[in-house]
Amino acid sequence: MQVNQTLIIHEVGLRDGLQSETQIVPIDIKLKWLENLINSGIKFIQVGSFVNPKVLPQMADTDEIFNRINNNQINFAIPEDVTLTALVLNEKGLERAINSKVGKILMGVSASETHSYKNTRMTVSEATTRIIEMAMLAIKEGFEVQVSVQSAFGCGYEGKVPKEKVIAIIRQYLAANIKNISLADTAGHANPTYVKELFKEIYQLDPTLTLACHFHNTYGLGLLNVQSAIQAGVKYIETSFGGLGGCPFTKVAAGNVATEDVVHFLKREGIDTTINILNLIELSKSVSNFFQKELPGFIYKTGPIFWQK
Amino acid sequence: MQVNQTLIIHEVGLRDGLQSETQIVPIDIKLKWLENLINSGIKFIQVGSFVNPKVLPQMADTDEIFNRINNNQINFAIPEDVTLTALVLNEKGLERAINSKVGKILMGVSASETHSYKNTRMTVSEATTRIIEMAMLAIKEGFEVQVSVQSAFGCGYEGKVPKEKVIAIIRQYLAANIKNISLADTAGHANPTYVKELFKEIYQLDPTLTLACHFHNTYGLGLLNVQSAIQAGVKYIETSFGGLGGCPFTKVAAGNVATEDVVHFLKREGIDTTINILNLIELSKSVSNFFQKELPGFIYKTGPIFWQK
Repeated sequence: MQVNQTLIIHEVGLRDGLQSETQIVPIDIKLKWLENLINSGIKFIQVGSFVNPKVLPQMADTDEIFNRINNNQINFAIPEDVTLTALVLNEKGLERAINSKVGKILMGVSASETHSYKNTRMTVSEATTRIIEMAMLAIKEGFEVQVSVQSAFGCGYEGKVPKEKVIAIIRQYLAANIKNISLADTAGHANPTYVKELFKEIYQLDPTLTLACHFHNTYGLGLLNVQSAIQAGVKYIETSFGGLGGCPFTKVAAGNVATEDVVHFLKREGIDTTINILNLIELSKSVSNFFQKELPGFIYKTGPIFWQK
Repeated sequence: MQVNQTLIIHEVGLRDGLQSETQIVPIDIKLKWLENLINSGIKFIQVGSFVNPKVLPQMADTDEIFNRINNNQINFAIPEDVTLTALVLNEKGLERAINSKVGKILMGVSASETHSYKNTRMTVSEATTRIIEMAMLAIKEGFEVQVSVQSAFGCGYEGKVPKEKVIAIIRQYLAANIKNISLADTAGHANPTYVKELFKEIYQLDPTLTLACHFHNTYGLGLLNVQSAIQAGVKYIETSFGGLGGCPFTKVAAGNVATEDVVHFLKREGIDTTINILNLIELSKSVSNFFQKELPGFIYKTGPIFWQK
């Protein structure tokens, strides 16, 4: 695959992966996994989310993780070129993220009215206005920000999400001069041709944008969608170790595309992410052992093919 | 996805899927599954292989299946436009296939010397000469034939399989005027860019070729490789219900790409195979129940997304 942009893996396992698990991961194990991610050479790592700990106990220690990191109470170094990110959903979360000196603050809206209302009790339009205000506040405070559009490729409740709905949100982001944007396929409805079409159309709105993609592998198309996004120029690929993730209230696991599967795929395609896949595999094995279950990823079970074309 | 050729699903579950299972499927159940495949609208169905029943007991009833079909001892009709295929490995198998009036006889060689020797005790060159003689005999007898190149994209023993090795076999097939050719990714080593490159190069040797692809999903790239093969003009896609398959002597399941996952993927891309995915899903559920295990396919677990772009 011909790629002109530098690809960056944004590991979301510690947030999107873990949040769907009811078994709480102790903070020391989270920090160990963070250390493993850093040792494997991943440069963008989502550490947690600043949400209501009563609603999401798994994320209750996000402030404490950053507190320990910021006060050198961890037994490993965070290299200069590693960015730790975290998700916020509202103003209170943003305040906590700012206090935690998060490397990049993530926030977003859903392009599906039903999904938006269920998550925020707001219309898409109201939620977009609010998120842009939060993003501008964070930027004013000197923080890096990435905004997202969730359910950008379809919605489990509504089915098809019109392209115009997504583009309208992007236009509002651009009007506010927010140029780091992620499209998330929350329900896993994306298909490769549409992925390429949508990302290309967004780039045409502003070629100086930095785009990220976030695909769930519900219907087995995760890697195809990643490939299409890369072909459309997307730079950041959000992935989860072992493919962990998915809503615990549905029958079917629907994790993110697995980090090591993406790294392996790219290597097979002649693109070296410089990430040590063997370290990643060990990490996914640890995660699998911790939860005492098989994860959806392929490569942590098979091992990589080492020979190159 | 823009597709100019008509795509044909060649279901291989009853052969490639079952042959890796030690639990013998009774002939009546195989016939029931065959009926389900026909009812779901699949037009090319691989029914079994004519191999040594002592080596592969699961395939021991292949002659009997065809015998019942040919003598109207089944309780469903085989429509005119359905082709039943079967695999042969040697002259004895070919004789049985001819006696069984197989709709299309499949045979092949491996492009990997190690794989070839382990399977046939012959070099690739010797095996190719033999297969071509067998194919020409079958054609002379009035049979349709498809020849294949196994390990065409890499080999579990040798790693990389040089492109020249594959092309050399194809040239010999073409010299014998055999134009139905399948490339099989026996080890699952294929990657999408190379798939496109190799198929395109083969088409350039003779644009009147009919090409088929056969991908195992060992490293999660099965559907990406199917997509690339289609983009390169490949017409026949060999798939297995539920993604069943893979060697029982390895730790990791490495089935074919799942039929219903491919049908669903194509539908998402706006390509209607006219196959009834709900029937297929019911079949894969039956197969899963029979073997009392989860199969690798996605869609038989999630169900399809019905809404269309």
